[in-house]
Amino acid sequence: MLTETKYFEISEDLHLESGATLGPVTIAYETYGELNQDKSNVILVCHALSGDSHAAFGTRENPEDLGWWDNYIGPQKAIDTNKYFVISSNVIGSCRGTTGPSSLNPRTKKPYALSFPVVTIQDMVKAQTLLIHSLGIKYIKAVIGGSMGGMQALAWAINYPEKIEKCIVLASTAKLSTQALAFDAVGRNAIITDPEWHNGNYSEKDTKPKNGLAIARMIGHITYLSDEFMDIKFGRKLQEQDDYGYHFATEFQVESYLKYQGDKFVNRFDANSYLYITKAIGYFDLVKKYGSLENAFKKVLAKFLIISFKSDWLYPPENSKLMVNALLKLNKEVSYFESSSPYGHDAFLLKDNELSEVISSFI
Amino acid sequence: MLTETKYFEISEDLHLESGATLGPVTIAYETYGELNQDKSNVILVCHALSGDSHAAFGTRENPEDLGWWDNYIGPQKAIDTNKYFVISSNVIGSCRGTTGPSSLNPRTKKPYALSFPVVTIQDMVKAQTLLIHSLGIKYIKAVIGGSMGGMQALAWAINYPEKIEKCIVLASTAKLSTQALAFDAVGRNAIITDPEWHNGNYSEKDTKPKNGLAIARMIGHITYLSDEFMDIKFGRKLQEQDDYGYHFATEFQVESYLKYQGDKFVNRFDANSYLYITKAIGYFDLVKKYGSLENAFKKVLAKFLIISFKSDWLYPPENSKLMVNALLKLNKEVSYFESSSPYGHDAFLLKDNELSEVISSFI
Repeated sequence: MLTETKYFEISEDLHLESGATLGPVTIAYETYGELNQDKSNVILVCHALSGDSHAAFGTRENPEDLGWWDNYIGPQKAIDTNKYFVISSNVIGSCRGTTGPSSLNPRTKKPYALSFPVVTIQDMVKAQTLLIHSLGIKYIKAVIGGSMGGMQALAWAINYPEKIEKCIVLASTAKLSTQALAFDAVGRNAIITDPEWHNGNYSEKDTKPKNGLAIARMIGHITYLSDEFMDIKFGRKLQEQDDYGYHFATEFQVESYLKYQGDKFVNRFDANSYLYITKAIGYFDLVKKYGSLENAFKKVLAKFLIISFKSDWLYPPENSKLMVNALLKLNKEVSYFESSSPYGHDAFLLKDNELSEVISSFI
Repeated sequence: MLTETKYFEISEDLHLESGATLGPVTIAYETYGELNQDKSNVILVCHALSGDSHAAFGTRENPEDLGWWDNYIGPQKAIDTNKYFVISSNVIGSCRGTTGPSSLNPRTKKPYALSFPVVTIQDMVKAQTLLIHSLGIKYIKAVIGGSMGGMQALAWAINYPEKIEKCIVLASTAKLSTQALAFDAVGRNAIITDPEWHNGNYSEKDTKPKNGLAIARMIGHITYLSDEFMDIKFGRKLQEQDDYGYHFATEFQVESYLKYQGDKFVNRFDANSYLYITKAIGYFDLVKKYGSLENAFKKVLAKFLIISFKSDWLYPPENSKLMVNALLKLNKEVSYFESSSPYGHDAFLLKDNELSEVISSFI
């Protein structure tokens, strides 16, 4: 099965939560499976920080390049493309096909950089509604996402209650913990203090804040894995020798893994997009916005499946349980599943038969 | 009570664990209380990563500038200076008076920078033995330290068993977890990739890798606090306004706290010292060195007090318990105390009556 990215141009200006407007906007998206005649078999998949519209299958250019959630999307998989029409779109603010700070501002013919408006999770979802509308779809069978994707799923259920039948939220939260906010703040600081950032205008100078972005990604990667899994995977093993080298080059395997992840990320992701998206994640706070979780969920009509991972210390199960409790108090339909997967926050991306079953039976 | 830094010049070259030699070496140290006639009332205090010899009292230059463990050292405090002669020295590799990478290499008349040899915890302790010896002291009533200071206390008890009566180890470990190793590796990477680092020779260029060192410190600070305490202290509170500013300046209180800590640190600490000391901490591994914890502790003669903090996720209680169990298996005398302090790793630095009592009654 192969896929290709499609592009949708939003014809109107997007009015953002900050009060700013953004336009024109292009949205990169992919679809898997066939839309049925009454357009009632739509599943919307929402991606996390560094994800994109390429959620499943290989691409025409590279059949081996499987999408980030290919473990869960496909024929007879948890999200069964024999039954459902799956849509995955890249969020605004990103750099993977949808309009973001690295896109050309048609008014200046230069990249937006920091003149791009700060966007929120709600803004990302608003842009998705226009894409959905353009496809003639009025009703979504299920919206699903992990981490920041879970925040989008929540925003869909809250802001467009009549459009959503089921809402599946994995490894997510109604608001980041202070610690998670802090890690993102340090990551942004690493980018902003990189002299190659040039106040965001690095592409004009034909450079990139590579070091800062790599540091941000390395910090991120530590938080995406559980301590337990890091111990099992790397422990204190050295890279090439048994004895210490008494130097400052990369020496422990875990150092080399993080450095590799940092360098790889710099080649595929835009530093300004990293700033904008982590800011959107940090701003997401249903309690601040609605006064309480119960108020936030008051008007939802969807059935919820909330999934957390015991070993996820970045988006810990406690935060998921707060949402479950608020939904229960409101007599909303909600199922909760706490996976014992040892892999930490990133567990939602990994192949897991139990998780597949929980998702497919709920759908 | 006021104190002043004294300096001891080691007359011989120091043979280091790596095989390298280092000399001449100056050690900065302070003492509190009076040495009794038979020199049997000595307590040696060992500092953590960013600490120094100024452990207690104010200084003559600034009576308000209390030492880093003034909560625990003083007349009628846990380490009672009416009874004991307390010695606190700055470790080799540091930048707070003892010879380190920012010191002048007498052979080149330039700062050592990266030509300074990589030192280990055992090397730090070896340098301390020469200081102790120069003071005519043969026997230490108690060696005590938190975090890296605890590693030094362990190395004392293991390498100089006949010299140590009691060994008190707070918030420490026989080896860093993979996660803790990883955080330090990212911190070092932030320094090394800062263009102002100049391969360690920044002082020649009259600059400093300020941004990198600040990032390293910010990462450190997140790990020194518990998630719970960060939530209580900062939560998601904004700095000056109630509503989001939709910009990339410092906005959340926790961001501003971390930035302040980063900037403050850059003014008092040397980036190369940060590299050397975190490397020494990362290298400390009693299991690797001795084959097992039991082998490591086989010849110790000291009575041990191991203290951990429930909320410390950087040096978690599990690691302390491994040491306690190894000592128990060897029928060594060991007491264990797990504090329920909510402050995380840095709890050992904070005033705490319960902790004071545990330490003073053990001594």
